[in-house]
Amino acid sequence: VPNSDVATRSTEERKADALAKLTAVNANVWVGSALPSGAVHLVPVSHTWNGTEVVVATGPGSPTVANITANPKVRLVLGETRDVVMIDAVLVSGVPALMPRRHRPMGLSPSPGWDPPTDDGDYVYLVPGPERIEVWREAEDLAGRTVMRSGSWMV
Amino acid sequence: VPNSDVATRSTEERKADALAKLTAVNANVWVGSALPSGAVHLVPVSHTWNGTEVVVATGPGSPTVANITANPKVRLVLGETRDVVMIDAVLVSGVPALMPRRHRPMGLSPSPGWDPPTDDGDYVYLVPGPERIEVWREAEDLAGRTVMRSGSWMV
Repeated sequence: VPNSDVATRSTEERKADALAKLTAVNANVWVGSALPSGAVHLVPVSHTWNGTEVVVATGPGSPTVANITANPKVRLVLGETRDVVMIDAVLVSGVPALMPRRHRPMGLSPSPGWDPPTDDGDYVYLVPGPERIEVWREAEDLAGRTVMRSGSWMV
Repeated sequence: VPNSDVATRSTEERKADALAKLTAVNANVWVGSALPSGAVHLVPVSHTWNGTEVVVATGPGSPTVANITANPKVRLVLGETRDVVMIDAVLVSGVPALMPRRHRPMGLSPSPGWDPPTDDGDYVYLVPGPERIEVWREAEDLAGRTVMRSGSWMV
């Protein structure tokens, strides 16, 4: 029996909430990646949104770069454990671009104000393209959580 | 040059902060697992701490159970992306125990008040044993972040 006291969100509202987290300035995303051998890596990474894909910036020697190069499927998570935006994504850039901090790649169009932190001048910009996005809070909110399927928004 | 304005935590403080997150009532942990094929799964899961290991409860049909059964190495994350407790852990229970909700496994000693949510009566209790724990907030706080190495606390 559905609990009518629990306000669940429409698909449109969930998409808007996902985009709000994706475009937030100076926000981080949890990036889960794995080698083909199954070794898991999971770290917070600076990110932005270029309109259709997530753009994350990390150091060229990071395990995330090694993993995503060997295995382009990643899982990204934004938000808290009880306010989740979960993204299954696949790397769309063929080769990660390595470039100085002040020369961001053309066409990525990061959000204004995006200034990924780094300890040195070099970045790898990785561009995972979302295939599936789910948005939920608590168990009551699980039904209807899918806002993107096979790379297409459902609204 | 160290920035003396930034207050970093001692190893003791970091361990205490890690244990506070591990023992928090009704808290969730991000569990990153992967099949030997490299497929990544990353979800929030209800957890507690039995004194030496993390105890997580999830549904018997979940991808986390399938992954951890095939590949016992997981990465767990507690906290926010800028207040991180990161745990590399290995499943210590040989076979996940499947039992009704009201019959928790002997010897796990979950924290008082722990009441993992579920939609049905069955649980799998998974018990990952930490091998490495790192605790940090911002980049300034990265040095000295390791509080457990090879399964032993450093304090």
